[in-house]
Amino acid sequence: MLTAHRHCPGSPTSIKATVVYPATEKHIQKYLRQEVHLIRETWEDYKDITLPFIQSQSFSIQWVYNILEKKAEADRIVHENPDPSNGFVLVPDLKWNQNQLDDLYLIALVHRRDIKSLRDLTAEHLPLLRNVLQEGKEAIGKRFGVPGSQLRIYLHYQPSYYHLHVHFTALGYDAPGSSVERAHLLADVIDNLAMDSTYYQKRALTFPLRADEPLFKKFQEAGKV
Amino acid sequence: MLTAHRHCPGSPTSIKATVVYPATEKHIQKYLRQEVHLIRETWEDYKDITLPFIQSQSFSIQWVYNILEKKAEADRIVHENPDPSNGFVLVPDLKWNQNQLDDLYLIALVHRRDIKSLRDLTAEHLPLLRNVLQEGKEAIGKRFGVPGSQLRIYLHYQPSYYHLHVHFTALGYDAPGSSVERAHLLADVIDNLAMDSTYYQKRALTFPLRADEPLFKKFQEAGKV
Repeated sequence: MLTAHRHCPGSPTSIKATVVYPATEKHIQKYLRQEVHLIRETWEDYKDITLPFIQSQSFSIQWVYNILEKKAEADRIVHENPDPSNGFVLVPDLKWNQNQLDDLYLIALVHRRDIKSLRDLTAEHLPLLRNVLQEGKEAIGKRFGVPGSQLRIYLHYQPSYYHLHVHFTALGYDAPGSSVERAHLLADVIDNLAMDSTYYQKRALTFPLRADEPLFKKFQEAGKV
Repeated sequence: MLTAHRHCPGSPTSIKATVVYPATEKHIQKYLRQEVHLIRETWEDYKDITLPFIQSQSFSIQWVYNILEKKAEADRIVHENPDPSNGFVLVPDLKWNQNQLDDLYLIALVHRRDIKSLRDLTAEHLPLLRNVLQEGKEAIGKRFGVPGSQLRIYLHYQPSYYHLHVHFTALGYDAPGSSVERAHLLADVIDNLAMDSTYYQKRALTFPLRADEPLFKKFQEAGKV
Protein backbone atom coordinates (compact mmCIF):
# COMPACT_ATOMS: atom_id res chain seq x y z
CA MET A 1 0.00 0.00 0.00
CA LEU A 2 1.49 3.32 -1.04
CA THR A 3 -0.21 6.43 0.22
CA ALA A 4 1.25 9.58 -1.24
CA HIS A 5 0.36 13.04 0.00
CA ARG A 6 1.15 15.79 -2.41
CA HIS A 7 -1.01 18.75 -1.64
CA CYS A 8 0.82 21.26 -3.62
CA PRO A 9 2.54 22.18 -6.83
CA GLY A 10 6.17 21.39 -6.43
CA SER A 11 9.13 19.26 -7.17
CA PRO A 12 9.11 15.57 -6.26
CA THR A 13 10.71 16.51 -2.93
CA SER A 14 7.27 17.56 -1.76
CA ILE A 15 5.97 14.01 -1.80
CA LYS A 16 5.52 12.44 1.61
CA ALA A 17 4.89 8.73 1.24
CA THR A 18 4.00 6.04 3.72
CA VAL A 19 4.87 2.61 2.42
CA VAL A 20 3.24 -0.37 4.07
CA TYR A 21 4.30 -3.59 2.35
CA PRO A 22 2.88 -6.15 2.27
CA ALA A 23 -0.39 -4.39 3.06
CA THR A 24 -2.94 -6.65 4.66
CA GLU A 25 -6.60 -5.73 4.86
CA LYS A 26 -5.87 -4.92 8.49
CA HIS A 27 -3.20 -2.36 7.59
CA ILE A 28 -5.48 -0.71 5.11
CA GLN A 29 -8.35 -0.59 7.57
CA LYS A 30 -6.11 0.85 10.25
CA TYR A 31 -4.94 3.57 7.90
CA LEU A 32 -8.40 4.43 6.65
CA ARG A 33 -9.94 4.32 10.09
CA GLN A 34 -7.60 6.85 11.65
CA GLU A 35 -9.90 9.11 13.52
CA VAL A 36 -10.02 12.80 12.75
CA HIS A 37 -10.72 15.29 15.52
CA LEU A 38 -11.23 19.02 15.56
CA ILE A 39 -8.78 21.13 17.52
CA ARG A 40 -9.85 24.57 18.73
CA GLU A 41 -6.55 26.42 18.91
CA THR A 42 -6.42 29.64 20.92
CA TRP A 43 -3.65 32.16 20.29
CA GLU A 44 -1.95 30.84 23.43
CA ASP A 45 -2.19 27.28 22.11
CA TYR A 46 -0.60 28.50 18.89
CA LYS A 47 2.31 30.10 20.72
CA ASP A 48 2.76 27.27 23.24
CA ILE A 49 2.07 24.19 21.12
CA THR A 50 1.76 24.76 17.37
CA LEU A 51 4.55 27.29 16.77
CA PRO A 52 7.24 25.33 18.69
CA PHE A 53 6.10 22.22 16.80
CA ILE A 54 6.43 23.95 13.40
CA GLN A 55 9.85 25.29 14.37
CA SER A 56 11.04 21.87 15.56
CA GLN A 57 10.18 20.26 12.23
CA SER A 58 12.41 20.66 9.24
CA PHE A 59 9.60 20.96 6.72
CA SER A 60 11.37 21.42 3.42
CA ILE A 61 9.93 24.18 1.31
CA GLN A 62 12.84 24.26 -1.11
CA TRP A 63 10.39 23.23 -3.85
CA VAL A 64 8.48 26.49 -3.24
CA TYR A 65 11.67 28.54 -3.50
CA ASN A 66 12.57 26.68 -6.72
CA ILE A 67 9.30 27.82 -8.27
CA LEU A 68 9.69 31.39 -7.02
CA GLU A 69 13.25 31.49 -8.42
CA LYS A 70 12.21 29.92 -11.77
CA LYS A 71 14.44 26.91 -11.14
CA ALA A 72 11.40 24.65 -11.52
CA GLU A 73 8.08 24.81 -13.34
CA ALA A 74 8.89 28.20 -14.89
CA ASP A 75 6.93 27.21 -18.00
CA ARG A 76 3.84 26.50 -15.89
CA ILE A 77 3.49 29.99 -14.41
CA VAL A 78 0.08 31.47 -15.25
CA HIS A 79 0.75 34.87 -13.70
CA GLU A 80 3.43 36.62 -11.72
CA ASN A 81 3.61 39.85 -9.81
CA PRO A 82 7.37 40.13 -9.18
CA ASP A 83 7.21 42.64 -6.31
CA PRO A 84 9.26 41.15 -3.46
CA SER A 85 6.85 42.40 -0.75
CA ASN A 86 3.47 42.31 -2.44
CA GLY A 87 4.00 39.90 -5.32
CA PHE A 88 3.30 36.24 -5.98
CA VAL A 89 3.45 33.46 -8.54
CA LEU A 90 0.30 31.66 -9.73
CA VAL A 91 0.73 28.05 -10.93
CA PRO A 92 -1.66 25.18 -11.63
CA ASP A 93 -1.77 22.73 -8.72
CA LEU A 94 -0.28 19.35 -9.63
CA LYS A 95 -3.60 17.69 -8.74
CA TRP A 96 -5.16 19.43 -11.74
CA ASN A 97 -4.33 17.94 -15.15
CA GLN A 98 -5.70 21.03 -16.97
CA ASN A 99 -7.72 18.86 -19.37
CA GLN A 100 -11.04 20.19 -18.08
CA LEU A 101 -12.24 23.13 -16.00
CA ASP A 102 -14.45 21.08 -13.65
CA ASP A 103 -11.64 20.50 -11.17
CA LEU A 104 -9.66 23.67 -11.87
CA TYR A 105 -7.07 24.13 -9.13
CA LEU A 106 -4.33 26.75 -8.96
CA ILE A 107 -2.04 27.92 -6.18
CA ALA A 108 -0.67 31.40 -5.51
CA LEU A 109 2.74 31.29 -3.79
CA VAL A 110 3.78 34.64 -2.30
CA HIS A 111 7.30 35.94 -2.87
CA ARG A 112 7.76 36.90 0.79
CA ARG A 113 9.30 34.09 2.79
CA ASP A 114 8.44 35.31 6.28
CA ILE A 115 4.74 34.42 6.46
CA LYS A 116 4.13 30.90 7.72
CA SER A 117 0.34 30.88 7.82
CA LEU A 118 -2.87 32.76 8.60
CA ARG A 119 -1.53 33.22 12.14
CA ASP A 120 1.21 35.59 10.92
CA LEU A 121 -1.07 37.87 8.91
CA THR A 122 -1.72 41.49 9.93
CA ALA A 123 -3.00 44.60 8.15
CA GLU A 124 0.57 45.04 6.88
CA HIS A 125 -0.14 42.21 4.44
CA LEU A 126 -3.34 43.68 3.00
CA PRO A 127 -1.72 44.99 -0.22
CA LEU A 128 -0.24 41.54 -0.86
CA LEU A 129 -3.51 39.72 -0.15
CA ARG A 130 -5.51 42.14 -2.30
CA ASN A 131 -3.07 41.61 -5.17
CA VAL A 132 -3.47 37.85 -4.91
CA LEU A 133 -7.26 38.13 -4.89
CA GLN A 134 -7.57 40.65 -7.69
CA GLU A 135 -4.77 39.58 -10.02
CA GLY A 136 -5.38 35.88 -9.41
CA LYS A 137 -9.03 36.24 -10.50
CA GLU A 138 -8.09 38.31 -13.53
CA ALA A 139 -5.37 35.91 -14.66
CA ILE A 140 -7.63 32.86 -14.34
CA GLY A 141 -10.42 34.66 -16.19
CA LYS A 142 -8.05 35.57 -18.99
CA ARG A 143 -6.31 32.22 -19.32
CA PHE A 144 -9.14 29.80 -18.57
CA GLY A 145 -12.30 31.85 -19.07
CA VAL A 146 -13.63 31.16 -15.57
CA PRO A 147 -15.14 34.28 -13.95
CA GLY A 148 -14.11 35.30 -10.44
CA SER A 149 -17.62 34.58 -9.13
CA GLN A 150 -17.05 30.89 -9.92
CA LEU A 151 -13.79 30.60 -8.02
CA ARG A 152 -13.41 29.50 -4.41
CA ILE A 153 -10.35 31.41 -3.18
CA TYR A 154 -9.08 30.37 0.23
CA LEU A 155 -6.28 29.56 2.65
CA HIS A 156 -5.92 26.40 4.67
CA TYR A 157 -5.34 26.35 8.39
CA GLN A 158 -3.34 24.31 9.20
CA PRO A 159 -1.65 24.56 5.82
CA SER A 160 0.23 21.61 4.30
CA TYR A 161 3.42 23.70 4.22
CA TYR A 162 4.36 26.82 6.12
CA HIS A 163 4.95 29.27 3.30
CA LEU A 164 1.92 31.47 2.67
CA HIS A 165 -0.13 30.26 -0.30
CA VAL A 166 -3.68 30.66 -1.53
CA HIS A 167 -5.89 28.03 -3.21
CA PHE A 168 -8.05 28.82 -6.25
CA THR A 169 -10.55 26.05 -7.07
CA ALA A 170 -13.59 25.81 -9.34
CA LEU A 171 -16.68 26.59 -7.26
CA GLY A 172 -18.44 23.51 -8.63
CA TYR A 173 -15.56 21.28 -7.56
CA ASP A 174 -15.87 19.75 -4.12
CA ALA A 175 -12.13 20.14 -3.57
CA PRO A 176 -10.55 18.27 -0.65
CA GLY A 177 -9.88 20.75 2.15
CA SER A 178 -12.60 23.19 1.11
CA SER A 179 -14.79 22.42 4.13
CA VAL A 180 -15.49 25.08 6.72
CA GLU A 181 -13.26 23.34 9.31
CA ARG A 182 -10.11 23.88 7.24
CA ALA A 183 -10.71 26.63 4.66
CA HIS A 184 -10.76 30.41 5.12
CA LEU A 185 -12.01 32.56 2.26
CA LEU A 186 -9.39 35.11 1.25
CA ALA A 187 -12.09 37.81 1.00
CA ASP A 188 -13.01 37.12 4.64
CA VAL A 189 -9.37 37.17 5.72
CA ILE A 190 -8.91 40.55 4.05
CA ASP A 191 -12.03 42.01 5.67
CA ASN A 192 -11.09 40.65 9.10
CA LEU A 193 -7.61 42.21 8.88
CA ALA A 194 -9.02 45.51 7.62
CA MET A 195 -11.35 45.53 10.64
CA ASP A 196 -8.70 44.48 13.16
CA SER A 197 -5.02 44.11 12.25
CA THR A 198 -4.50 41.58 15.05
CA TYR A 199 -7.58 39.49 14.28
CA TYR A 200 -5.55 36.32 13.63
CA GLN A 201 -3.46 36.87 16.75
CA LYS A 202 -6.62 36.98 18.87
CA ARG A 203 -9.14 34.57 17.49
CA ALA A 204 -9.27 30.87 18.25
CA LEU A 205 -9.08 28.81 15.06
CA THR A 206 -10.50 25.35 14.42
CA PHE A 207 -8.77 22.70 12.34
CA PRO A 208 -8.95 18.92 11.86
CA LEU A 209 -6.11 16.55 12.72
CA ARG A 210 -5.80 12.81 12.34
CA ALA A 211 -5.17 11.08 15.64
CA ASP A 212 -1.83 9.76 14.35
CA GLU A 213 -0.43 13.17 13.42
CA PRO A 214 2.44 14.46 15.58
CA LEU A 215 0.73 17.81 16.20
CA PHE A 216 -2.34 15.98 17.50
CA LYS A 217 -0.12 14.21 20.02
CA LYS A 218 1.27 17.59 21.15
CA PHE A 219 -2.24 18.89 21.81
CA GLN A 220 -3.05 15.64 23.58
CA GLU A 221 0.02 15.90 25.80
CA ALA A 222 -0.99 19.45 26.69
CA GLY A 223 -4.41 18.16 27.76
CA LYS A 224 -6.17 20.15 25.03
CA VAL A 225 -7.98 17.30 23.27
CA MET B 1 -38.40 14.79 -13.49
CA LEU B 2 -39.15 15.54 -9.87
CA THR B 3 -36.55 17.46 -7.94
CA ALA B 4 -37.38 17.82 -4.30
CA HIS B 5 -35.49 20.09 -1.94
CA ARG B 6 -35.92 19.25 1.67
CA HIS B 7 -33.04 20.69 3.56
CA CYS B 8 -34.45 20.42 6.95
CA PRO B 9 -36.30 18.37 9.48
CA GLY B 10 -39.92 19.21 9.16
CA SER B 11 -43.37 18.31 8.06
CA PRO B 12 -44.11 17.67 4.39
CA THR B 13 -44.99 21.35 4.03
CA SER B 14 -41.25 22.05 3.88
CA ILE B 15 -40.85 20.25 0.58
CA LYS B 16 -40.33 22.54 -2.39
CA ALA B 17 -40.69 20.57 -5.59
CA THR B 18 -40.11 21.46 -9.19
CA VAL B 19 -41.99 19.18 -11.52
CA VAL B 20 -40.90 19.02 -15.14
CA TYR B 21 -43.00 16.51 -17.06
CA PRO B 22 -42.28 15.07 -19.51
CA ALA B 23 -38.59 15.59 -18.78
CA THR B 24 -36.44 15.42 -21.85
CA GLU B 25 -32.69 15.01 -21.66
CA LYS B 26 -32.55 18.71 -22.48
CA HIS B 27 -34.65 19.66 -19.44
CA ILE B 28 -32.49 17.55 -17.19
CA GLN B 29 -29.28 19.01 -18.59
CA LYS B 30 -30.62 22.51 -18.24
CA TYR B 31 -31.48 21.88 -14.61
CA LEU B 32 -28.17 20.26 -13.79
CA ARG B 33 -26.13 22.84 -15.67
CA GLN B 34 -27.54 25.85 -13.83
CA GLU B 35 -24.49 27.87 -13.02
CA VAL B 36 -23.64 28.71 -9.45
CA HIS B 37 -21.99 32.03 -8.62
CA LEU B 38 -20.64 33.52 -5.43
CA ILE B 39 -22.24 36.69 -4.13
CA ARG B 40 -20.24 38.95 -1.81
CA GLU B 41 -22.98 40.65 0.20
CA THR B 42 -22.08 43.80 2.13
CA TRP B 43 -24.27 44.94 5.01
CA GLU B 44 -25.75 47.54 2.65
CA ASP B 45 -26.53 44.82 0.09
CA TYR B 46 -28.23 42.87 2.85
CA LYS B 47 -30.43 45.82 3.83
CA ASP B 48 -31.14 46.95 0.26
CA ILE B 49 -31.49 43.63 -1.57
CA THR B 50 -31.59 40.51 0.61
CA LEU B 51 -33.78 41.69 3.50
CA PRO B 52 -36.55 43.16 1.28
CA PHE B 53 -36.44 39.94 -0.74
CA ILE B 54 -36.84 37.77 2.38
CA GLN B 55 -39.69 39.95 3.59
CA SER B 56 -41.45 39.83 0.22
CA GLN B 57 -41.46 36.04 0.19
CA SER B 58 -43.95 34.09 2.22
CA PHE B 59 -41.51 31.36 3.24
CA SER B 60 -43.57 29.06 5.41
CA ILE B 61 -41.84 28.05 8.60
CA GLN B 62 -44.98 26.61 10.19
CA TRP B 63 -43.25 23.22 10.20
CA VAL B 64 -40.56 24.70 12.51
CA TYR B 65 -43.21 26.05 14.88
CA ASN B 66 -44.96 22.66 14.83
CA ILE B 67 -41.76 21.02 16.09
CA LEU B 68 -41.15 23.72 18.71
CA GLU B 69 -44.75 23.34 19.93
CA LYS B 70 -44.57 19.51 19.93
CA LYS B 71 -47.33 19.30 17.31
CA ALA B 72 -44.97 17.33 15.08
CA GLU B 73 -42.00 15.03 15.58
CA ALA B 74 -42.21 15.28 19.38
CA ASP B 75 -41.00 11.69 19.66
CA ARG B 76 -37.88 12.52 17.63
CA ILE B 77 -36.54 15.21 19.97
CA VAL B 78 -33.04 14.32 21.17
CA HIS B 79 -32.69 17.25 23.55
CA GLU B 80 -34.59 20.36 24.57
CA ASN B 81 -33.75 23.43 26.54
CA PRO B 82 -37.22 24.96 27.04
CA ASP B 83 -36.07 28.48 27.90
CA PRO B 84 -37.98 30.84 25.59
CA SER B 85 -34.99 33.18 25.10
CA ASN B 86 -31.99 30.89 25.32
CA GLY B 87 -33.46 27.47 24.61
CA PHE B 88 -33.72 25.19 21.59
CA VAL B 89 -34.87 21.81 20.33
CA LEU B 90 -32.42 19.29 18.85
CA VAL B 91 -33.83 16.82 16.28
CA PRO B 92 -32.29 14.45 13.74
CA ASP B 93 -32.35 15.94 10.25
CA LEU B 94 -34.67 14.08 7.90
CA LYS B 95 -31.72 13.41 5.58
CA TRP B 96 -30.25 11.12 8.27
CA ASN B 97 -31.89 7.71 8.63
CA GLN B 98 -30.11 7.09 11.98
CA ASN B 99 -29.01 3.60 10.89
CA GLN B 100 -25.30 4.53 11.00
CA LEU B 101 -23.21 7.32 12.45
CA ASP B 102 -21.20 8.02 9.26
CA ASP B 103 -23.69 10.59 8.03
CA LEU B 104 -24.98 11.75 11.40
CA TYR B 105 -26.98 14.96 10.93
CA LEU B 106 -29.00 16.82 13.53
CA ILE B 107 -30.52 20.29 13.62
CA ALA B 108 -30.97 22.65 16.56
CA LEU B 109 -34.02 24.91 16.17
CA VAL B 110 -34.03 27.86 18.56
CA HIS B 111 -37.21 28.72 20.46
CA ARG B 112 -36.90 32.43 19.69
CA ARG B 113 -38.75 33.37 16.54
CA ASP B 114 -37.15 36.74 15.89
CA ILE B 115 -33.77 35.68 14.51
CA LYS B 116 -33.82 35.17 10.75
CA SER B 117 -30.17 34.38 10.16
CA LEU B 118 -26.53 35.10 11.00
CA ARG B 119 -27.20 38.72 9.96
CA ASP B 120 -29.47 39.27 12.99
CA LEU B 121 -27.04 37.94 15.60
CA THR B 122 -25.44 40.21 18.20
CA ALA B 123 -23.75 39.67 21.57
CA GLU B 124 -27.27 39.56 23.04
CA HIS B 125 -27.57 36.06 21.57
CA LEU B 126 -24.35 34.68 23.07
CA PRO B 127 -26.06 32.78 25.92
CA LEU B 128 -28.38 31.10 23.39
CA LEU B 129 -25.54 30.21 21.01
CA ARG B 130 -23.37 28.89 23.84
CA ASN B 131 -26.25 26.71 25.03
CA VAL B 132 -26.70 25.26 21.55
CA LEU B 133 -22.98 24.53 21.25
CA GLN B 134 -22.49 23.05 24.71
CA GLU B 135 -25.77 21.20 25.23
CA GLY B 136 -25.93 20.04 21.62
CA LYS B 137 -22.50 18.39 21.91
CA GLU B 138 -23.36 16.81 25.25
CA ALA B 139 -26.70 15.45 24.04
CA ILE B 140 -25.17 13.93 20.90
CA GLY B 141 -22.33 12.41 22.92
CA LYS B 142 -24.81 10.88 25.35
CA ARG B 143 -27.30 9.58 22.80
CA PHE B 144 -25.03 8.58 19.91
CA GLY B 145 -21.58 8.27 21.49
CA VAL B 146 -19.96 10.74 19.11
CA PRO B 147 -17.55 13.13 20.88
CA GLY B 148 -17.82 16.88 20.34
CA SER B 149 -14.41 16.92 18.61
CA GLN B 150 -15.91 14.81 15.82
CA LEU B 151 -18.85 17.10 15.16
CA ARG B 152 -18.96 19.90 12.60
CA ILE B 153 -21.30 22.48 14.14
CA TYR B 154 -22.27 25.33 11.85
CA LEU B 155 -24.82 27.75 10.43
CA HIS B 156 -25.60 28.28 6.78
CA TYR B 157 -25.65 31.66 5.12
CA GLN B 158 -27.92 31.97 3.24
CA PRO B 159 -29.98 29.50 5.24
CA SER B 160 -32.68 27.36 3.61
CA TYR B 161 -35.29 28.90 5.93
CA TYR B 162 -35.21 32.09 7.94
CA HIS B 163 -35.61 30.79 11.48
CA LEU B 164 -32.27 30.45 13.25
CA HIS B 165 -30.99 26.88 13.26
CA VAL B 166 -27.66 25.14 13.67
CA HIS B 167 -26.37 22.06 11.82
CA PHE B 168 -24.54 19.21 13.60
CA THR B 169 -22.90 16.76 11.19
CA ALA B 170 -20.34 13.98 11.57
CA LEU B 171 -16.89 15.43 10.87
CA GLY B 172 -16.09 12.53 8.55
CA TYR B 173 -19.23 13.19 6.51
CA ASP B 174 -18.79 15.50 3.54
CA ALA B 175 -22.22 16.99 4.17
CA PRO B 176 -23.77 19.13 1.42
CA GLY B 177 -23.45 22.79 2.42
CA SER B 178 -20.40 22.28 4.66
CA SER B 179 -18.05 24.09 2.29
CA VAL B 180 -16.40 27.33 3.32
CA GLU B 181 -18.57 29.39 0.93
CA ARG B 182 -21.77 28.51 2.79
CA ALA B 183 -20.95 27.28 6.31
CA HIS B 184 -19.97 29.26 9.40
CA LEU B 185 -18.66 27.36 12.44
CA LEU B 186 -20.75 28.14 15.50
CA ALA B 187 -17.56 28.45 17.60
CA ASP B 188 -16.32 31.15 15.20
CA VAL B 189 -19.66 32.95 15.26
CA ILE B 190 -19.56 33.01 19.07
CA ASP B 191 -15.98 34.33 19.15
CA ASN B 192 -16.71 36.98 16.53
CA LEU B 193 -19.73 38.24 18.47
CA ALA B 194 -17.80 38.21 21.76
CA MET B 195 -15.13 40.33 20.06
CA ASP B 196 -17.57 42.70 18.36
CA SER B 197 -21.31 42.61 18.98
CA THR B 198 -22.01 44.13 15.56
CA TYR B 199 -19.63 41.85 13.62
CA TYR B 200 -22.41 40.41 11.44
CA GLN B 201 -23.86 43.85 10.78
CA LYS B 202 -20.50 45.03 9.45
CA ARG B 203 -18.81 42.23 7.61
CA ALA B 204 -19.44 41.32 4.00
CA LEU B 205 -20.54 37.68 3.69
CA THR B 206 -20.06 35.35 0.74
CA PHE B 207 -22.62 32.80 -0.39
CA PRO B 208 -23.38 30.75 -3.52
CA LEU B 209 -26.54 31.17 -5.59
CA ARG B 210 -27.75 29.32 -8.65
CA ALA B 211 -28.28 31.66 -11.59
CA ASP B 212 -31.99 30.74 -11.69
CA GLU B 213 -32.70 31.67 -8.07
CA PRO B 214 -34.85 34.77 -7.53
CA LEU B 215 -32.35 36.32 -5.10
CA PHE B 216 -29.62 35.99 -7.74
CA LYS B 217 -31.81 37.97 -10.14
CA LYS B 218 -32.20 40.69 -7.49
CA PHE B 219 -28.44 41.02 -7.14
CA GLN B 220 -28.13 41.02 -10.92
CA GLU B 221 -30.73 43.78 -11.27
CA ALA B 222 -28.81 45.83 -8.71
CA GLY B 223 -25.67 45.43 -10.82
CA LYS B 224 -23.92 43.47 -8.08
CA VAL B 225 -23.07 40.29 -10.04
